[in-house]
Amino acid sequence: MNHRPDFARWMADIQQRTETALAELLPAATQAPQRLHQAMRYAALGGGKRVRPLLAHAAGHLAGADAARLDRVACAVELVHVYSLVHDDLPCMDDDVLRRGKPTVHVEYDEATALLVGDALQTLAFHVLAEQPVADTAETQLAMLTLLATASGSRGMAGGQAIDLGAVGRQLDRAELEFMHIHKTGALIRAAILLGAHAGAGLNEDEMARLDHYGKQIGLLFQVVDDILDTEADTATLGKTAGKDADQGKPTYVSLLGLGEARRYAEELLADACDTLEPLGERATYLQGLAEYITRRSF
Amino acid sequence: MNHRPDFARWMADIQQRTETALAELLPAATQAPQRLHQAMRYAALGGGKRVRPLLAHAAGHLAGADAARLDRVACAVELVHVYSLVHDDLPCMDDDVLRRGKPTVHVEYDEATALLVGDALQTLAFHVLAEQPVADTAETQLAMLTLLATASGSRGMAGGQAIDLGAVGRQLDRAELEFMHIHKTGALIRAAILLGAHAGAGLNEDEMARLDHYGKQIGLLFQVVDDILDTEADTATLGKTAGKDADQGKPTYVSLLGLGEARRYAEELLADACDTLEPLGERATYLQGLAEYITRRSF
Repeated sequence: MNHRPDFARWMADIQQRTETALAELLPAATQAPQRLHQAMRYAALGGGKRVRPLLAHAAGHLAGADAARLDRVACAVELVHVYSLVHDDLPCMDDDVLRRGKPTVHVEYDEATALLVGDALQTLAFHVLAEQPVADTAETQLAMLTLLATASGSRGMAGGQAIDLGAVGRQLDRAELEFMHIHKTGALIRAAILLGAHAGAGLNEDEMARLDHYGKQIGLLFQVVDDILDTEADTATLGKTAGKDADQGKPTYVSLLGLGEARRYAEELLADACDTLEPLGERATYLQGLAEYITRRSF
Repeated sequence: MNHRPDFARWMADIQQRTETALAELLPAATQAPQRLHQAMRYAALGGGKRVRPLLAHAAGHLAGADAARLDRVACAVELVHVYSLVHDDLPCMDDDVLRRGKPTVHVEYDEATALLVGDALQTLAFHVLAEQPVADTAETQLAMLTLLATASGSRGMAGGQAIDLGAVGRQLDRAELEFMHIHKTGALIRAAILLGAHAGAGLNEDEMARLDHYGKQIGLLFQVVDDILDTEADTATLGKTAGKDADQGKPTYVSLLGLGEARRYAEELLADACDTLEPLGERATYLQGLAEYITRRSF
C-alpha cells in the first residue's frame, strides 16, 4: 500500500508541512537566549521520520479534521518525542553521541544546554497545544491536553523510561518487556493517533475504539521493528548507534524471542492493526499504509 | 502586617493545604514505576516555603476565586518550581547536594532518576492545570495553560537559566542581571499571581494591571532578598548551600550593588509593591503581607 505513489506523496507532504510548522513554532535562533533557541532548533528540525505527526495527520484525516489544526497537534506530540530523545541521549541516561545522523545535543552544545533544551521543548509542546484552537470546543482541547500529559508523564513515557532504567542487566519476561514498551514508546504513539482524531469531530464510539486498538498495536509494532532493525542494520544507515541495547544488556524482542519469532510477531501486529480499521473503509487508508510503512521501514 | 496572628494563621493554612493537595495529586509511591514516584514525592513534599502557592492563593482571594480551584493552580505552579530545582541541582548545572535541608534528588537517588523526576513533575504541572475546571470557562483555562507555558519555557524560566549559564564568570551590568532574573525567577512568580487571579472572575482591567505590576516587583524583590540571604546566612539555616553563587563567580545583587544598596533596593521594591495594591483595599491584605514576608524572611 505504501508503494502507491499517492501514499508516498502524502507522506512527503506531511513530513514537509511538519518541518515548516515546527520551524514556525520554535523560537527564532536570533531571539534571546540565542544559544538555547539555536539548540532547540538543532534538536527538533531537519531530521526524523516524523512517525507521530504522520499518525496524527492520518487519524485526523479519518476524523475529518482541519489540516492546520493537525499541524499543531502533530508538532505538540513531536516536541514531546524530541525532548525525550534529547534527555535520553544524556550521559546519565543512554550516553549516546549520534541521533538522526547528527551529534547529539549535549555533544554539539553541552550537557547543561541539552538539559534545558529538553525541558523547554516539553514546555513548548503544551504551549502549542493550548495556545490556539485545535478542536471544536475548548472543553475537548482541555481533554487533549490531559491526554498528552497522561501519555508523556510518569504513568506514560517518562514512566516507561524509568522502568527501562531499572531493567538494564536484568532478565525481563515477555509481559514485563511489553509493559515497559507500552509506556516508553506506545503511550505517545497512541496519543498521537487519538489527538489527531479529537481534532476532528467525525468519529463514533465504535470507530474511536477501533482507532485506539490500532494505536496500541502500532505502538508495539514500532518497538518490535526497532529491535529487529537494531540487530540488523549498521550505525550509518540507522542514524543512531546500532546494537546498543543488546550491548548494554537491555532486553529486546529479538533477545527474548529470537529474530524469526520477532519478525512473525511484527507481521501479526501489522495484520491485526490493518484488520481493525477495515470497517472504516477508504478513510483509513493512510493509517493502514503507515502500519505497513512502520513494518517495512529500513531507514 | 505579617506579624498579625490572622496572617500567620492564613499562611500556615495555605502551606498545609498545598502539602495535602500535592500529596493527593502526585502518583502514589506504591504505583509503578515505584522508584520514580517515590522520588517525585521526595522532591515535592515536606519542604519549601510554598511562596508561589501563597501568592496564587492571595491573588485568588483578591479575585474571589474558589479555594479548591486555587489548590490546583497553586500546585501546578509549585510543580514547575520543584522540577526546575531538581534539574538545577544536577551535576551538569549547579551540582548541589543540599536542598530544603535534605540531600538533592540525584544524591538521594541517582542522576537518571533525578532527570526523569524533573521531566515528570513538569508534565504533572500541565496535567493538574488541564484535568479539572480551574476557571469560569474552558477558554480562560486554556489561556491559563498558555500563561504557565510562557512563564516556564525558553522565553521564561528555562530561558533565564540559560542566560544564567552563560553569565558564569562574566561581569554583568545591572540591566543584564535584571533581565536574567526577570526570566529565571520573576516569570513564574508573576505567573503564580496572575493564574490565581484568573481562577476568579472579580478583577477589572485596572486591578489586573496593578496586580501584574505587583507581580513584577515581587519577582525582583524575591531575588534581591535571596542574594542578601545567600551572603548573610550559613548553610544550616538556609537549607541549601550558602555563598554558592558568589563562589562560582555568578553575579548577584550584592556583588553588583553592595550589601547596603541591595537592602535599600529591596525596601524600595517592597514599598512600591504594597503601594500599587493600596486602591484595592482590604482584599489585598494577604498580597501585601506576603511582600513583607518575602522581604523579612530569614528561613
